[in-house]
Amino acid sequence: MRMYDIIKKKRDGGRLTKKEIDYFVSGYTKGRVPDYQAAALCMAIYYKGMDLDETTALTLAIKDSGDTLDLDLGGVRVDKHSTGGVGDKTSLIVAPLAACCGIKVAKISGRGLGHTGGTVDKLETIKGYRTDLSTAEFAKIVRTAGVSVIGQSGNFAPADKKLYALRDVTATVESVPLIVSSIMGKKLAANDDCIVLDVKCGSGSFMKSRENAEELARQMVSVGRNAGKEVCALITDMDRPLGNAVGNALEVIEAIETLRGGGPEDLRELSLALTAQMLRLAGMGSTEECAQTARKALDSGKALNTFAEMVELQGGDPVWVYHTDRFPAAEHSLEVISPADGYISRVDTEKYGEVSLILGAGRNTKDDKIDPAAGFILKKKTGDAVRRGDVIATLYTTDKPQALEEAAEMMLSATVFSEEAPEPVPLILGMIE
Amino acid sequence: MRMYDIIKKKRDGGRLTKKEIDYFVSGYTKGRVPDYQAAALCMAIYYKGMDLDETTALTLAIKDSGDTLDLDLGGVRVDKHSTGGVGDKTSLIVAPLAACCGIKVAKISGRGLGHTGGTVDKLETIKGYRTDLSTAEFAKIVRTAGVSVIGQSGNFAPADKKLYALRDVTATVESVPLIVSSIMGKKLAANDDCIVLDVKCGSGSFMKSRENAEELARQMVSVGRNAGKEVCALITDMDRPLGNAVGNALEVIEAIETLRGGGPEDLRELSLALTAQMLRLAGMGSTEECAQTARKALDSGKALNTFAEMVELQGGDPVWVYHTDRFPAAEHSLEVISPADGYISRVDTEKYGEVSLILGAGRNTKDDKIDPAAGFILKKKTGDAVRRGDVIATLYTTDKPQALEEAAEMMLSATVFSEEAPEPVPLILGMIE
Repeated sequence: MRMYDIIKKKRDGGRLTKKEIDYFVSGYTKGRVPDYQAAALCMAIYYKGMDLDETTALTLAIKDSGDTLDLDLGGVRVDKHSTGGVGDKTSLIVAPLAACCGIKVAKISGRGLGHTGGTVDKLETIKGYRTDLSTAEFAKIVRTAGVSVIGQSGNFAPADKKLYALRDVTATVESVPLIVSSIMGKKLAANDDCIVLDVKCGSGSFMKSRENAEELARQMVSVGRNAGKEVCALITDMDRPLGNAVGNALEVIEAIETLRGGGPEDLRELSLALTAQMLRLAGMGSTEECAQTARKALDSGKALNTFAEMVELQGGDPVWVYHTDRFPAAEHSLEVISPADGYISRVDTEKYGEVSLILGAGRNTKDDKIDPAAGFILKKKTGDAVRRGDVIATLYTTDKPQALEEAAEMMLSATVFSEEAPEPVPLILGMIE
Repeated sequence: MRMYDIIKKKRDGGRLTKKEIDYFVSGYTKGRVPDYQAAALCMAIYYKGMDLDETTALTLAIKDSGDTLDLDLGGVRVDKHSTGGVGDKTSLIVAPLAACCGIKVAKISGRGLGHTGGTVDKLETIKGYRTDLSTAEFAKIVRTAGVSVIGQSGNFAPADKKLYALRDVTATVESVPLIVSSIMGKKLAANDDCIVLDVKCGSGSFMKSRENAEELARQMVSVGRNAGKEVCALITDMDRPLGNAVGNALEVIEAIETLRGGGPEDLRELSLALTAQMLRLAGMGSTEECAQTARKALDSGKALNTFAEMVELQGGDPVWVYHTDRFPAAEHSLEVISPADGYISRVDTEKYGEVSLILGAGRNTKDDKIDPAAGFILKKKTGDAVRRGDVIATLYTTDKPQALEEAAEMMLSATVFSEEAPEPVPLILGMIE
């Protein structure tokens, strides 16, 4: 078998066999297939696509390129995965919420680049919280509290690490089969029994159109099923940030408010819907019944206690969970003021993400340091009435006070005002299973 | 400027600016742009193409990546370039023929991979012939004899060397703008005043269809014109080998017969047509007048004498030119026998090329050694009547006698017999200028 022939076959629109895909992925992981041939193949896949069998084979090859996580937890293990959006802190909520309802959540999260850090960066804003546990410690905490969230360690899906880094510099990220195999290859290596996907759609997400988001969701669900897992996906709106807080500590605080039964309505709604699906896939009843179970756990404070227990078991100070004034406050802030009367009719969520990034909440390159207190809290969101002079948002930063003015201007330029109220758009656009 | 943005722009079908193309080519030549980004861009160009301005910019950037050959020869300097075919030894004929008609032919030829060696390998079958001259020696011989043919030396179009090697292993060779810029980038670095292109078309060439060959020719002519050169192209048939001899020494001997006014009719016809265009571009009259001039030079023996003069000036033994029995004969031979009565209706010219390769006449990799005496002489060609038991061809080899049987079978399997004579196809299919 020759890599040249594999590239040429895909270039000409052919269907790659499982053998050819395995040859590519294992050769690339081991360095026998050079970057330039992998880049040419990725570009050919970008144009010619892959059918479901090819995408499944690619996903399994990526999964099999490294270790898989085999934990003995004595219960159904379920994960939730989001394709990523601005203000998305649902992992912090659904993990303890689903766990306290009786399933096991052993979650490995990333750091990643973007407008804020990843779930791991957010949790690390809690004093003492350790994300670098051994597999034995990790399993023990899940067995005790029902939930643990740690950072990536071990050799999971090394093919994806290499391939993603390559795609990132060769303009081949935006390919549905490559995205599906990247996400699902890692997810399958984590080896949960059930996976609920939150596929974001709109200006603040990777998939700008509903059709693309649905196609991505359909393929991820099918590939997961082909690999023997229970999988479903919600398609959710990312034409507005989720919740009001964007930033690392700010988002943890908002998640805690939501775990306490409060929090912004949209964040509560999505967290309950995702948890309900997690419980349903684990066989705990109908969607309606599972939603009811989750709502009770949230409103009773049970989910908050589970979160506090996990924090403590991972070395964090549980007092912070009940007293969020312990989180360090930003040293500098600036209010963004509405220049008009009327309504906020639309926002460019991606630009809102950039506001957070330039305030220091995110990373441009993997070596950038995150400012845990940086970010913003929205006071007005899409659909809200505003008057000239109202505060739309408060921006926070400790490390980058010089960026406050630019950030405020950027946020205003990404906010569209209108005289009429815009048509409301539902948060949950659909479900694929 | 970032390479990522250049790849993405072309991926999405955008038009690259001259600045972007220069950034890519100079960065790639200097090693600042890595292979994997170049590979991704080549694949995007494969799918999305380039317009004439982009192709011109790419060609000029490749030319400007190294030295150009500036010779003071006191006359119009004209070259002929073929896209390559089986049995194509016209360079050996047109170079001295055009030179003895009054133009300067300072030709730098390659070795290359394929069914036989390149022009340089062929000339080196003449005892003593040196192809590694200095630029000063080269120019002196052209001033004296009107013609010199040497091998590649110096730093001409290094971007093409790197890019071609990359395209060769990433399935991105077959892209018209990339082929055009590769050929014309090198040609423009050689810096002739006029260039006659021989674009082959058919089973034994790169461009299988007439349309593709014409498109390639049109773009090469336009790019050459944009660069200020006189250029035209003949489209010629490569559904059959050119002439009867394929192999290094065998082709030199057939070229000498043609220079003597004899030789196979097709080889004579094409050599005269190409030479006529070379003279016409140099301003020596109409095609008709120039063809007349060339015919006289061939039939009078003047062209042969010029060839002998060049051979002698380059250290070769001119006696060989007049006594071709001096060329070393192959130690082993085998006749290929017709299994049928009727006509040869069609041959797979590419497979004929492979016959020559397995007999030892060509190179699979650049370090392979060439057997100068290996190859074959056709006794029957497309359109010829044959009887069962007739000799179709004689195969020759010194180094690979064990390949003779397989080569004979391969030739027969690549030869189609019929009861009716096939429709004759002209050798020269068209002209682009």
